[in-house]
Amino acid sequence: MSDSQSIGIVVPEQMQFQTPLALKSGAVLDSYTLTYETYGRLNAAKSNAVLICHALSGNHHVAGVYADDPRNAGWWNNMVGPSKAIDTEKYFVIGINNLGGCHGSTGPISINPMTGKPFGADFPLVTTDDWAETYIHFADKLGIDRFAAVVGGSLGGMSAMQLTLNAPERVRHAVVIAAAAKLTAQNIAFNDVARQAILTDPDFHGGDYYSHHTLPKRGLRLARMLGHITYLSDDSMASKFGRELRNGSLSFNYDIEFEIESYLRYQGDKFANRFDANTYLLMTKALDYFDPAAQYDGNLSQAFSHTKANFLVISFSSDWRFPPERSRSIVKALLDNKRHVSYAEIPSSHGHDSFLMQDAYYHQLMRAYMNNIMV
Amino acid sequence: MSDSQSIGIVVPEQMQFQTPLALKSGAVLDSYTLTYETYGRLNAAKSNAVLICHALSGNHHVAGVYADDPRNAGWWNNMVGPSKAIDTEKYFVIGINNLGGCHGSTGPISINPMTGKPFGADFPLVTTDDWAETYIHFADKLGIDRFAAVVGGSLGGMSAMQLTLNAPERVRHAVVIAAAAKLTAQNIAFNDVARQAILTDPDFHGGDYYSHHTLPKRGLRLARMLGHITYLSDDSMASKFGRELRNGSLSFNYDIEFEIESYLRYQGDKFANRFDANTYLLMTKALDYFDPAAQYDGNLSQAFSHTKANFLVISFSSDWRFPPERSRSIVKALLDNKRHVSYAEIPSSHGHDSFLMQDAYYHQLMRAYMNNIMV
Repeated sequence: MSDSQSIGIVVPEQMQFQTPLALKSGAVLDSYTLTYETYGRLNAAKSNAVLICHALSGNHHVAGVYADDPRNAGWWNNMVGPSKAIDTEKYFVIGINNLGGCHGSTGPISINPMTGKPFGADFPLVTTDDWAETYIHFADKLGIDRFAAVVGGSLGGMSAMQLTLNAPERVRHAVVIAAAAKLTAQNIAFNDVARQAILTDPDFHGGDYYSHHTLPKRGLRLARMLGHITYLSDDSMASKFGRELRNGSLSFNYDIEFEIESYLRYQGDKFANRFDANTYLLMTKALDYFDPAAQYDGNLSQAFSHTKANFLVISFSSDWRFPPERSRSIVKALLDNKRHVSYAEIPSSHGHDSFLMQDAYYHQLMRAYMNNIMV
Repeated sequence: MSDSQSIGIVVPEQMQFQTPLALKSGAVLDSYTLTYETYGRLNAAKSNAVLICHALSGNHHVAGVYADDPRNAGWWNNMVGPSKAIDTEKYFVIGINNLGGCHGSTGPISINPMTGKPFGADFPLVTTDDWAETYIHFADKLGIDRFAAVVGGSLGGMSAMQLTLNAPERVRHAVVIAAAAKLTAQNIAFNDVARQAILTDPDFHGGDYYSHHTLPKRGLRLARMLGHITYLSDDSMASKFGRELRNGSLSFNYDIEFEIESYLRYQGDKFANRFDANTYLLMTKALDYFDPAAQYDGNLSQAFSHTKANFLVISFSSDWRFPPERSRSIVKALLDNKRHVSYAEIPSSHGHDSFLMQDAYYHQLMRAYMNNIMV
């Protein structure tokens, strides 16, 4: 990728909301802040806004770099930028840190105005429904009646679907990548092991670790290590790491022996130092709870009868977290309702993480779809 | 299964070995004990002995019950017994708790004669090679020149393979079920997350938790929860638990909500109360280390050129821990050497755990193979 295609230096912004937000759980947030970034310009008709929804550990920093951290490019910098697949010369692209996040939007690490201390365990669980609500309020403030598109991978794809269901008039196109209409028991099981790792870490203190001046890093590290196994495919792990030994021979102890161990522990350590455990817990619950068909006795087609958006659904052949058949069930439910839907299964060896990767076919497909949208 | 087929009350025995055992790691055990059970009678020719090798969390209690615990049947009670697939009226069946185990054979919880305290972290790592060595010494003591068969599932299948490689003259038939010729990077990755859960539990104390009067139950519980996900298939979890809610509605907290969470936490708790964490660590390492092709530049066919046994190899369609293709690579390596090998892929929805389940086709196949062996 040439530098000419980089969006350059970006600056996060914050938007304050003073109208109480009634959450799906029954809790009410009196006020909240959303941290976001925008790239490109909102046109006069306000018809070119594209909302990017982030996945479990993502945030609003989708593209570009910060002036004081020029190597830390946004998580979808390969997809979003001038002349890129999501072209910031055409679109006004918005990245929002979801409510409950730990990178600037109101979440467990934020100060609870009622107590003057971090929310911690008192921060309510939030759902994709709640996020959809905040996206609408956000759009209202910018005067955006309809998003040209709402785009997301994994949990972000679920958030995108949710918005098309909760506010059909506000979304023209939804791009749902490496997602599913609900988690399976196995998906929930992996999330629960990750949660138990955090919840049983003695440094977790029931979620109020901030006031104990500790961080449940052991648990968060384990959660991330486990997560990484599910993000990669068996094949990609095999070709990247195989059974390679770090020091060439077995050491017969519990230090790092195989390269895969080195990789996982490094990823776990890095994550435990940058992410908030309460936010991680909350994000996994948002995943577990997502199930738009539930209120229609499990009938996804009926759930999607409310959408008005056109859809692009994308899956990756080696994604075993949310395999292609899970995307096809979304496509089928949309077709049952005679919605406009395009679907592609991208051959890829990178597993669930493929949605973040540079891949010519995937990016061409995204580019073609996004180019076709009239603004 | 009728009671008439049950082997009834069994009694574990112990065998002492005073000849030093040089382990693969370079460590030497001056003496050790193996705990075992036998079912049926050794014939005069000593030609009807069948050795059952256990998997990661198994032990010598393969079949029957203990007088003081009549509900605790052996882990393969459905397979081993009078007139069962492995017929104790024909065979003298032996179950051994592997060296390093925590159910009677010398292992980390045993008293180190040098210190008068439990070995703990000082217990050396052991490998399938070391186990093969102990099986041979065990057979020597009973005067068994050749096992009629050595049989095992999962890690037990690897132990069986190892014995055919280390002592080709001592095994007539090997039955290798739901196993693989080596772990993949993904298999190792799951093991490493499980190990890290234990090793980073503050109650682990570097493996010397016995002297701290603690048990690293949190870590062991997480390890087992994670293990269980890999033992079951996605489909079996879906049909057993689906997205069923334990109390019918979402609770918006981190208590048990979904049935799968209830199941996993229960299994984790139960295991953490009955198994030793150091043994668990050691068993996962034995899995990681198993790779008979390694000393032949990864050429499994060359490795198997040393075996003389006839093989029955069995895989299960829904086993994603060691899928059928991994068994087929064993079969191919055996066929490359013109060995007698039978192979069956059993249609099953129960994942890796299928090897422990009652399944008519699987049991008929085992019965037919075992019936055919002349003793």
